[in-house]
Amino acid sequence: MKYCSQCGNKNNKIIPDGDDRIRDVCPSCDTIHYQNPRIIAGCIPVWEDKILLCKRAINPRKGYWTLPAGFMELGETTEQAAIRETLEEAEAIVQTDELYAVFNLPHINQVYMIYRSVLLKPEFSSGTESLETRLFEEHEIPWDELAFETMRLSLKYYFRDRKIGAFKFRTTDVIKTILP
Amino acid sequence: MKYCSQCGNKNNKIIPDGDDRIRDVCPSCDTIHYQNPRIIAGCIPVWEDKILLCKRAINPRKGYWTLPAGFMELGETTEQAAIRETLEEAEAIVQTDELYAVFNLPHINQVYMIYRSVLLKPEFSSGTESLETRLFEEHEIPWDELAFETMRLSLKYYFRDRKIGAFKFRTTDVIKTILP
Repeated sequence: MKYCSQCGNKNNKIIPDGDDRIRDVCPSCDTIHYQNPRIIAGCIPVWEDKILLCKRAINPRKGYWTLPAGFMELGETTEQAAIRETLEEAEAIVQTDELYAVFNLPHINQVYMIYRSVLLKPEFSSGTESLETRLFEEHEIPWDELAFETMRLSLKYYFRDRKIGAFKFRTTDVIKTILP
Repeated sequence: MKYCSQCGNKNNKIIPDGDDRIRDVCPSCDTIHYQNPRIIAGCIPVWEDKILLCKRAINPRKGYWTLPAGFMELGETTEQAAIRETLEEAEAIVQTDELYAVFNLPHINQVYMIYRSVLLKPEFSSGTESLETRLFEEHEIPWDELAFETMRLSLKYYFRDRKIGAFKFRTTDVIKTILP
């Protein structure tokens, strides 16, 4: 943060008293501008044995397939964010089940929180951020055209657990963001 | 955000094209300043049958007891944040076990992520943010002097699950922050 969001003056990069990290600090109003990782909340929307995916209409990874997910907003819970993102991107109404996976992406300061969820009816279409939305059976999943490693892992875990008949909560650190 | 952190000009409060929320947008450089909830990562540090708590040296809730926890920083994972906070607040080294609880506090835009953890040795002392650190057996927990509802719930869940002999991941929405 080059400028102070409170008073508009130029910030300095200093370690505040009692801290051990360089922060953007305003020399005029003394505001310390902390920056923190952001949460991306999303769903694995299930209808019968199929999963709903969205083809991204925006960058990054435009044209690639993703589970509905996006940045959590102020004033909502992680579940509400996951439901809202599914409504926005796939125009689908889901009921969330348990939190299924947490992915840490420290290199880009993101934490993904992915919920298993059930479509309340098999109705969906493309929101403004999607080019296409479609239900996929396991053998139809476009593994080579997935937008993000977090989505590949979510789907891999899901199908593995479904085969066993027991869903196990996962937490994984992901170093690479974009699939090769 | 009153002023643009990129160029120092005054922001406008408008709904950007393709969005449905009011954001702080700079009329000069067009930067949209998104704001998002923050993650608080923490531990339930266990030594034998005892739990390590810290008496807060800072506000909010100075003088009240808490599990070690604090805001996740850029460039770290949620587990690394939980371990670092325990080192800073209780000068204790822990090994984290599974993620144990997620608390959503939408009214203050926070998401708590609490890990079960084991002290590697029974050594600890008070970091700069703590007045006192102490191991508590279950019957010694100062239930009426806990700093936050999230900590009361974490401890309640922990002791309940320990009695049963099976730890179950929890996710709970917390409306009240401070205990009465």
